Amino acid sequence: MTTFGQVAAAIDERRLWDRHEALARVGATERGGVNRQALSDEEIAAKRVLIGWAGALGLEASTDAIGNLFLRLPGYDPALTPVMTGSHIDSQPTGGKYDGVYGVLAGLEAVEAMRAAGYQPRRAIDIVAWTNEEGSRFAPGMMGSEAFAGVRALETILPVADAAGIRVEAELARLDAAFPDMARRPVGFPVAAYVEAHIEQGPELEAAGHQVGVVTGIQGKKTWKVSVRGEEAHAGTTPRRRRRDALAAAAAMIAALHRAIVDADDVVRFTVGRIQVEPNAPSVVPARADFSIDLRHPDGPTLEGFGAAVESICQANAGPCTVTVTPLVDAAPLTFPSAMQDATRQTAERLGLAPMALASAAGHDARNLHMVCPSAMIFVPCAGGISHNEVEATLPGDLAAGARVLAELLVQLADRA
Amino acid sequence: MTTFGQVAAAIDERRLWDRHEALARVGATERGGVNRQALSDEEIAAKRVLIGWAGALGLEASTDAIGNLFLRLPGYDPALTPVMTGSHIDSQPTGGKYDGVYGVLAGLEAVEAMRAAGYQPRRAIDIVAWTNEEGSRFAPGMMGSEAFAGVRALETILPVADAAGIRVEAELARLDAAFPDMARRPVGFPVAAYVEAHIEQGPELEAAGHQVGVVTGIQGKKTWKVSVRGEEAHAGTTPRRRRRDALAAAAAMIAALHRAIVDADDVVRFTVGRIQVEPNAPSVVPARADFSIDLRHPDGPTLEGFGAAVESICQANAGPCTVTVTPLVDAAPLTFPSAMQDATRQTAERLGLAPMALASAAGHDARNLHMVCPSAMIFVPCAGGISHNEVEATLPGDLAAGARVLAELLVQLADRA
Repeated sequence: MTTFGQVAAAIDERRLWDRHEALARVGATERGGVNRQALSDEEIAAKRVLIGWAGALGLEASTDAIGNLFLRLPGYDPALTPVMTGSHIDSQPTGGKYDGVYGVLAGLEAVEAMRAAGYQPRRAIDIVAWTNEEGSRFAPGMMGSEAFAGVRALETILPVADAAGIRVEAELARLDAAFPDMARRPVGFPVAAYVEAHIEQGPELEAAGHQVGVVTGIQGKKTWKVSVRGEEAHAGTTPRRRRRDALAAAAAMIAALHRAIVDADDVVRFTVGRIQVEPNAPSVVPARADFSIDLRHPDGPTLEGFGAAVESICQANAGPCTVTVTPLVDAAPLTFPSAMQDATRQTAERLGLAPMALASAAGHDARNLHMVCPSAMIFVPCAGGISHNEVEATLPGDLAAGARVLAELLVQLADRA
Repeated sequence: MTTFGQVAAAIDERRLWDRHEALARVGATERGGVNRQALSDEEIAAKRVLIGWAGALGLEASTDAIGNLFLRLPGYDPALTPVMTGSHIDSQPTGGKYDGVYGVLAGLEAVEAMRAAGYQPRRAIDIVAWTNEEGSRFAPGMMGSEAFAGVRALETILPVADAAGIRVEAELARLDAAFPDMARRPVGFPVAAYVEAHIEQGPELEAAGHQVGVVTGIQGKKTWKVSVRGEEAHAGTTPRRRRRDALAAAAAMIAALHRAIVDADDVVRFTVGRIQVEPNAPSVVPARADFSIDLRHPDGPTLEGFGAAVESICQANAGPCTVTVTPLVDAAPLTFPSAMQDATRQTAERLGLAPMALASAAGHDARNLHMVCPSAMIFVPCAGGISHNEVEATLPGDLAAGARVLAELLVQLADRA
């Protein structure tokens, strides 16, 4: 047992900051960012560091068939389901030091503080690092939490290949080989509640001067893969009337989509982030162009309306090429349970912080846990709202403030009968 | 000495065809094409095959500091400058069996026929395989003939790197190591005349039913590299007004260029064949997009007019990004000397072929040799006009017809005092 504030008082701002710096050295890029993509050697090395810290705390490490990593602080009533907290440690190819990592390290710091305060929870607390949240190497992302929550079947995830043709299944085998003695758990087990701490990845908290945000929900997201097929031809000889130029068609589609998917209040988020062209040679008319579409909006009907236009805009701009538009992700907007939002806000207020309520513009693993247990998210500010970028930055005091809210919220959730 | 037609009669259609098949096995692709890019292991292996055939004929192999391969049939008057024929054996990444290769193998077959007919030329005949005509691995192409003709300084070619960062200089050292005993020649030496045989890579000969074309000249060509710079940002959180999306800008540029660079008679050739995006991840707003432009036209002023619009169209579509447009190739249209065209046409007519006069839409090494000696080109048909494609096809009889014209033309040029 503990009184409110004891665990929060044991949060060590310096340790939390130093651990971010230490993990950022695993996969560090020249420009101060991180390249630690899902199931890479760098991610394995980062897991080894995490497991080392957890081992020193006496936490039990375990994994499952999709490579999620669990670090458990046992509860004194083993008949009760655990409370879970965490996020992910994979990054974008040119990612920052905090996206995902903060949620895992804030969970670890909360447990460090519990230990320091002499607190043992009634329910076990699992700190989790979900597999492939980012989706940059293996698309789409959130594979670990989707499999855990039963949103997506494991069998459909294992064959997914990266750009080099390497399959998730093969990389999972490599991960298992790196940790041969780790305990195994089933993919998905009962959880009492889930709380995820994360940097905001947007500008609102910083602009409003709040250290902590209570997330009301997550905007909806739809993604597609667009495949344009034309015909290879010699750039010097083939007349325009005989060309089927896949990149010309793709460029017309992308330009038309950018013109069409706009709104006056600047709420819709439309991105074509990846394009791959074959043979991609300067003097050959391109035969193939594949590109990604990422569309998000917090309002369900508005998201559906924009989404419904995507295929017709692509078809209208295909010219002499053929185009197939394949939906990948279709996640409706969600609202976290009000009881979880209230508990988070009240915890922050009792700690003397002034929490701000805001929606998450980015997707998070909490989207999937929301399907299986009461879930909540805590945001901390992120400089300039810049994320998915090597210059991603936060303040040590803000990270610690979020960890204090997380720690006290976990105490309340873990002590429930 | 020989009488007209004796050497042509010794051309062996089957041997010429079989050698195309044999070379096509070096770098063969699954779909029946060839991937034998400049200075690759595959090109080295193909050179080894060529040198083997040449050695059996008693030809002397030599090279120069840019890796051009020369196979010499000695003349009986060594004081005279040589006559040269050839083309290139590098290919596009998904190229065909005949582009370039035909010019080298037709030259070899002509010399085979000379030997079989008991003919020794007055002037030496050099069969050449020029380095990196295609420019798909190291851009721009025609490095070997440009260096030979003094169009481009060797020092500006050696540092050029491929997409993996490998420099021409390093690959040339590897080439030299593969043929340590080969004789060396200077980069550029006096040549009396140059004749290049090539597949048309366009549809005209086939459509008009001619086996042989006399090339009147080569259309002009301009190429650019366009570099668009924006800023990386999170696709889910960053509002449109704060985005600097390099791919959105590049797509707008490419679409606008395709709309602007058109003509009623369908003579202009405009191609964006390559695009490279960073970080090229589905949920990251792209920070960088580089693309290639290839523009060709047989009329100088028209080419200049279209070319002058390129930069302003890119700038007008840059939106919040910055763009730099860097010229790479600027080759004016050219006309081969009428005496060389006449000699080629008359040789074909005397052999009973009905030659067709036509311009070359594609660039060739003969563009550069034209700067240093009287030059000519012989075209043979190419099925459907399709080239730079794995399905590239020709007929054995057409290849042999072109080789007969080449052989008799070389005899005339080599016997001149």
